[in-house]
Amino acid sequence: MSLKLAVLALLAERRGYGYDLAQRFEARVGTAWQLNPSAVYPALEQLERAGLVAVTVRQRGRRAPRVLYTPTPAGDLALDAWLGSPDARPEPVRSDLHLRLAFARARDRPALCAQVLARERACAELLAGAVAAGAAAAADPAGGTSGLVRAGVAARLRAELAWLGDVRAALARERGR
Amino acid sequence: MSLKLAVLALLAERRGYGYDLAQRFEARVGTAWQLNPSAVYPALEQLERAGLVAVTVRQRGRRAPRVLYTPTPAGDLALDAWLGSPDARPEPVRSDLHLRLAFARARDRPALCAQVLARERACAELLAGAVAAGAAAAADPAGGTSGLVRAGVAARLRAELAWLGDVRAALARERGR
Repeated sequence: MSLKLAVLALLAERRGYGYDLAQRFEARVGTAWQLNPSAVYPALEQLERAGLVAVTVRQRGRRAPRVLYTPTPAGDLALDAWLGSPDARPEPVRSDLHLRLAFARARDRPALCAQVLARERACAELLAGAVAAGAAAAADPAGGTSGLVRAGVAARLRAELAWLGDVRAALARERGR
Repeated sequence: MSLKLAVLALLAERRGYGYDLAQRFEARVGTAWQLNPSAVYPALEQLERAGLVAVTVRQRGRRAPRVLYTPTPAGDLALDAWLGSPDARPEPVRSDLHLRLAFARARDRPALCAQVLARERACAELLAGAVAAGAAAAADPAGGTSGLVRAGVAARLRAELAWLGDVRAALARERGR
């Protein structure tokens, strides 16, 4: 649902085509969203079927024609409805690692420790990306609220890293007993 | 996927039935997961169809018979495979509020501010629940890693709250310009 609306918002700023939208999405929201660029195409198709975007085809000589999308008036209304609506329930806190931790048996502890370490590395990598992008966004006067989004991603990753350190220490203490 | 495996893990600890499993899941993992108890029944059905759990029916006199689930040997193997596997990629950081923040236009700012405030309240409520449950889990010698899970949930909610405060301040500064 949200991806479709975000694509619609990008199109309201400037009409676009699939690959361009995936790039603009990532530039705006960041890599921690882990957008699969190919997810943009079904979103565009659904928006078109719902009458929220219109399609024009731009011929480009010998190159494949480019399919361009523009919001329809109904699309503009849908965008207004989304951005003007007060729904702000926090997303469920769902993490596969939480479940593994909740249900691991004594014999699963070595695998669990390996997972915690691997997750720490992966989070640190995502955090470095978010911090670098956040600095770039903060320096860009046209960046708007993009820096705030990166800061939100970075805050979550930092909290996750601190917690993972605690988990690692707790598992090591338990093993020491 | 993960919920099915968690249900399987609960059944490996002690056979059970739908409602009982929903209660045990929430006691172990917490309310921030926002489990819809009715989601347990399709999970049980899928586990049964996959041959991972077996069903016995316990007659209870005049009351409706109780359907009890027990892992099959294939279920035990699936559980071992999950808890012994080293997959620990961090979940994508996906938040509807991040998207709203990234795409809000000047005229959406009042709605956005209202959303940030509402989200702060909702997060504070979830955090209070996670902290209370975490204290109970820490005091329970049989609690195992349950306290670590609550701590992970609480850490994420605290980070979200701190960030929401920053967002509120940034939006207020912008409005002041």
